[in-house]
Amino acid sequence: MQKTMKGFAMLGIGEVGWIEKEVPNCGPCDAIVRPIALAPCTSDVHTVWEGAIGERKDMILGHEAVGEVVEVGELVRDFKPGDKVIVPAITPNWSSLEAQAGYPMHSDGMLSGWKFSNFKDGVFAEFFHVNDADGNLALLPEGIDPAHAAMIPDMVVTGFHGVDLADVRFGDSVVVVGIGPVGLMSVAGANMRGASHIYAVGTRPNCVAAAKAYGATDIINYKEGDIADQILEKTNGKGVDRVIVAGGNNDTFAQAIRMLKPGGKIGNVNYLGSGDYIRIPRIEWGVGMGHKSIVGGLTPGGRLWMEKMAALLETGKLDTSLLVTHTFHGFDKIEEALMLMKDKPADLIKPVVLIDW
Amino acid sequence: MQKTMKGFAMLGIGEVGWIEKEVPNCGPCDAIVRPIALAPCTSDVHTVWEGAIGERKDMILGHEAVGEVVEVGELVRDFKPGDKVIVPAITPNWSSLEAQAGYPMHSDGMLSGWKFSNFKDGVFAEFFHVNDADGNLALLPEGIDPAHAAMIPDMVVTGFHGVDLADVRFGDSVVVVGIGPVGLMSVAGANMRGASHIYAVGTRPNCVAAAKAYGATDIINYKEGDIADQILEKTNGKGVDRVIVAGGNNDTFAQAIRMLKPGGKIGNVNYLGSGDYIRIPRIEWGVGMGHKSIVGGLTPGGRLWMEKMAALLETGKLDTSLLVTHTFHGFDKIEEALMLMKDKPADLIKPVVLIDW
Amino acid sequence: MQKTMKGFAMLGIGEVGWIEKEVPNCGPCDAIVRPIALAPCTSDVHTVWEGAIGERKDMILGHEAVGEVVEVGELVRDFKPGDKVIVPAITPNWSSLEAQAGYPMHSDGMLSGWKFSNFKDGVFAEFFHVNDADGNLALLPEGIDPAHAAMIPDMVVTGFHGVDLADVRFGDSVVVVGIGPVGLMSVAGANMRGASHIYAVGTRPNCVAAAKAYGATDIINYKEGDIADQILEKTNGKGVDRVIVAGGNNDTFAQAIRMLKPGGKIGNVNYLGSGDYIRIPRIEWGVGMGHKSIVGGLTPGGRLWMEKMAALLETGKLDTSLLVTHTFHGFDKIEEALMLMKDKPADLIKPVVLIDW
Amino acid sequence: MQKTMKGFAMLGIGEVGWIEKEVPNCGPCDAIVRPIALAPCTSDVHTVWEGAIGERKDMILGHEAVGEVVEVGELVRDFKPGDKVIVPAITPNWSSLEAQAGYPMHSDGMLSGWKFSNFKDGVFAEFFHVNDADGNLALLPEGIDPAHAAMIPDMVVTGFHGVDLADVRFGDSVVVVGIGPVGLMSVAGANMRGASHIYAVGTRPNCVAAAKAYGATDIINYKEGDIADQILEKTNGKGVDRVIVAGGNNDTFAQAIRMLKPGGKIGNVNYLGSGDYIRIPRIEWGVGMGHKSIVGGLTPGGRLWMEKMAALLETGKLDTSLLVTHTFHGFDKIEEALMLMKDKPADLIKPVVLIDW
Repeated sequence: MQKTMKGFAMLGIGEVGWIEKEVPNCGPCDAIVRPIALAPCTSDVHTVWEGAIGERKDMILGHEAVGEVVEVGELVRDFKPGDKVIVPAITPNWSSLEAQAGYPMHSDGMLSGWKFSNFKDGVFAEFFHVNDADGNLALLPEGIDPAHAAMIPDMVVTGFHGVDLADVRFGDSVVVVGIGPVGLMSVAGANMRGASHIYAVGTRPNCVAAAKAYGATDIINYKEGDIADQILEKTNGKGVDRVIVAGGNNDTFAQAIRMLKPGGKIGNVNYLGSGDYIRIPRIEWGVGMGHKSIVGGLTPGGRLWMEKMAALLETGKLDTSLLVTHTFHGFDKIEEALMLMKDKPADLIKPVVLIDW
Repeated sequence: MQKTMKGFAMLGIGEVGWIEKEVPNCGPCDAIVRPIALAPCTSDVHTVWEGAIGERKDMILGHEAVGEVVEVGELVRDFKPGDKVIVPAITPNWSSLEAQAGYPMHSDGMLSGWKFSNFKDGVFAEFFHVNDADGNLALLPEGIDPAHAAMIPDMVVTGFHGVDLADVRFGDSVVVVGIGPVGLMSVAGANMRGASHIYAVGTRPNCVAAAKAYGATDIINYKEGDIADQILEKTNGKGVDRVIVAGGNNDTFAQAIRMLKPGGKIGNVNYLGSGDYIRIPRIEWGVGMGHKSIVGGLTPGGRLWMEKMAALLETGKLDTSLLVTHTFHGFDKIEEALMLMKDKPADLIKPVVLIDW
Repeated sequence: MQKTMKGFAMLGIGEVGWIEKEVPNCGPCDAIVRPIALAPCTSDVHTVWEGAIGERKDMILGHEAVGEVVEVGELVRDFKPGDKVIVPAITPNWSSLEAQAGYPMHSDGMLSGWKFSNFKDGVFAEFFHVNDADGNLALLPEGIDPAHAAMIPDMVVTGFHGVDLADVRFGDSVVVVGIGPVGLMSVAGANMRGASHIYAVGTRPNCVAAAKAYGATDIINYKEGDIADQILEKTNGKGVDRVIVAGGNNDTFAQAIRMLKPGGKIGNVNYLGSGDYIRIPRIEWGVGMGHKSIVGGLTPGGRLWMEKMAALLETGKLDTSLLVTHTFHGFDKIEEALMLMKDKPADLIKPVVLIDW
Repeated sequence: MQKTMKGFAMLGIGEVGWIEKEVPNCGPCDAIVRPIALAPCTSDVHTVWEGAIGERKDMILGHEAVGEVVEVGELVRDFKPGDKVIVPAITPNWSSLEAQAGYPMHSDGMLSGWKFSNFKDGVFAEFFHVNDADGNLALLPEGIDPAHAAMIPDMVVTGFHGVDLADVRFGDSVVVVGIGPVGLMSVAGANMRGASHIYAVGTRPNCVAAAKAYGATDIINYKEGDIADQILEKTNGKGVDRVIVAGGNNDTFAQAIRMLKPGGKIGNVNYLGSGDYIRIPRIEWGVGMGHKSIVGGLTPGGRLWMEKMAALLETGKLDTSLLVTHTFHGFDKIEEALMLMKDKPADLIKPVVLIDW
């Protein structure tokens, strides 16, 4: 195998470019993977242009990939070179205390299950390193388009995690704030968990169309007034059972509290990029006693979730093709795809780069 | 209002007929309802011809109804004469300790939330009595066909309760044993809770077709061999995450245990009509330590569940029309509909009697 | 029975006094009770002197009582005149949709399960009315001191509800903020749920002594520095698993978030009396993704909780006698007891008024 | 380090003896540990004299140990030679799909988290091997007697797991069947989870005394009649909320079902050694619909549980010293301690062997 490789990297805050690096070393439990489908993420944009995780120098970007295993460590049992795999954005240390407590995404520290393009190089490279291959890779089922599977590592599982956090149940009324690709997967997930009324908050026409296709029953346009007011009006002042936050900002939570029934739950999967505080309105929160629970969390990652989501694609229960609005061919198209994500043209939901080696 | 009324009753074990009875009295919290859509249930057949609940004399049958309120008690706040309502098969005493503990169906004693055609007259009458109207009635949403809504009081909520008991989650593989109307709703419910592979066990062609329409990915024919063997073969010996039992008999549980992964869950909603014991195979149950949990339960009933299920019909998330294979018109057709349920012709899933007063 | 009765009332915001009122009427499901042990609550102080629930005119105060049934409605089955009963502060409408959804304290509206001295007259009267007697009364077990049992209606169940909300598990490290009587019951409850390290935040010597007796392993004095800093120092920077908030103010939540591990839970049972917003620090909350869940809720109330808590006193598992620092004898001592609660002398935890009729 | 070592082994079914073996090899994630406190278990007796896990030849016995680390693999981060550690009986593969699903004890197959003296040599040796040291060891807190800590690896966590499986809550009435060391820890665990009435089933005087000390409120002697009858009589026919099965045999479950309220839960941690089936009585199980849930499971093992339990000993919340009725000194006393476990003299609860190297 070659000793060095090309990768598309964050050179520093606000600056990206192609770099040459050593091919990563494969530890005894690990794998080295070559990408075959890559997707840039809004998080990459946050990382580079908003300095979301602080300064990084020459760090290869990207955390959404489907690939082919090229090397495995001597203790890896379930994967071998040549295997086509789905690689989760979050690759926990499964032995950690946090994982044992049910929070693998926080293994070795809050949010530290997120390693790609955070604590180590990401997947926008000729090769990338996966810690704990047996715990963090999943076979790509035959017949699944790698471009569609590339939605699983982050978009699907993050959107679905919002549904889990909000604990959607049969017949619940649910608001999904934000219908970018993650929010759309929250709509799909809420629908797949038995919600009845699904109020999707957003405005971009292609996202609205996708939201309806994924099960939204009502579209709420935030340009037409306060979204809490709109929801309360549509529900005769009763509010909804669940709110999934997949967009907006710190102020969204005050709205979410207002539109929620007592006993309701808010599940946040949105990255909150600025401001010091999220504010919870005291009165609408029942002066502290309204049982309106608030939880936000990073998606778990890991092999099991990848396998479960792949099974949903395999059985046709979930169709991620609606997310993939732009497809590029060739490793060198990563830059173009990322800039598209940065510029967010009106017709974009998610770009994918397919690579034939 | 008239003083006496006609009803179709169990005259004694094995015997049915029309009787004349006094119109029931309405307590301060209660309602008197006139049926507009009725469905006979296999339970009615068990009650009459198998003596499932013991001897009963001149007890009006039936517990699945949509109706119109004709009278309410002075403490009823949310319903009034003329309201079209969905009436749950299970009408709990919501103040009971059991309801406070989360088990309304067992209010005042195991299974005692089931009152219609068990502890009091059922719904196959010109009028019937509903205890705790505010807690146990739900408005029929406008535009919903009463025949389709009549599937909610028992078929939908019992099938869905199986899904809740088995705790189906995103991507789970699920077996549903039995695809009568309840089992079909378990298939639909598993599908609406995000299952991937849904293995439906049954053979009747129209039920098989409905199971596929409701989301079954595989049909298992018990005539082609032991169902646990078939499931294990289809899952490469791994078994499934969840089993919902909506048919079969005491021996089904031994099969369910065998086809289940460790950590798997069995949710039973099937009435077990004979035999002294359900048998759990010691070895396959992990010599007591395999975390294969077994729970069976009567559906909760009550207003909230009716409202939530009605919202699923209203939003088009659930289509119960596939269940209604036979429609009768006229109060006097109750007998014919019940006998159809008893005889179970090949093309039957569920009959409904519609009544225009 | 007499037609009118005396009661100690809120005459208006900031004003209290004895008034004469009609004895309340007993509905068919209700009971009329004569108090034998009464306790004033900090909430009474909030109600009168802080206007916490707005203006009220001539509303009898009090919601913590043990009493004797003097009359029951014709539909009441389980209680009869002469029965000694524990009366919960929260008396839900158990038929409500909210109760069916698991939130009886919010029956008929957020916080509306709280009726005494809120929507109707309270218990500081010669007689008081209890809605849904079968659902909301519990027999006082023989041999239990009414003064000790009078801690159950609010202090015990509110403190324990904080433990339930925070979901304390075996071996967890727990912070309890505030060691007034509710906080002390959170300490006791955390201890009875298997916590290991219990850090109790407070300063008053008798409360500190009681906290230790109830299981606190460490006392944190907020006068000696930021409590989050102190907790982090004591836990080597790791923080704790659970925080129960039973005191403090809106700013306490920012501290609670800081002292919590990712995956940790905050359970609030403290009334938040002023300010517009509770503020959640964005960074320490994991930029929205740290799985630090926040929930606050009113205690459930109702018969089952009263019975369960009474069983804890009966079996000697919980000793509430440490809370009762001041005992008064005679109905006319209610005023004195309430003023004590208002003035909070250093040696006070909780006063009780015992009444011999 | 020496190349070979002595160990006390199962030579074949029914036969034990001292053998000489190679010191185990330490993989990159693993540790080699030298025992300082060992406890034989009834499972060792089952393994040897009942052939519970089938034939084994020259397999070193034992799975309950506190020890000192002598070697760690190059990837181990949190432990080093010289560390005193608690070693769980169950040492899962934390990367496995089963662990990711919340069932580490079944990692790589049902019950396969149990490796010591099952799939590899046990701890009754001069040295033993621990897979995944970071995930499966816990530091022994200073000041904790190794003999008392030796109760944690199996007795405490298995007994407590029964409490978790039965989901004991505040004020619950609980039956614990069997008061050997595991059952005693279930009594202690139920008490530490807030149970009120705790009915302990057993007869041996020292175990009865320990059960009372650990919180049992009532002792049920199975020699004095059917235990379900006795429980029903003591509860006025109502039954109990929870049953923890830590003794008995297949027939115990039929009794447990009978003594349980609808909505009740059975948690089994007892090894079921013979017979083909556990039998669930159909009628008492609510003809399949009584919500009497049945689950049995192996304890989870792993580092987090060891640390949490150690914190309970450290804070004085749990006192395991009552279990340790017999203490031996010296590695060569293992045989004597095991034979004591086999013979179960009347005054035995649990023996420990302490080793000074």
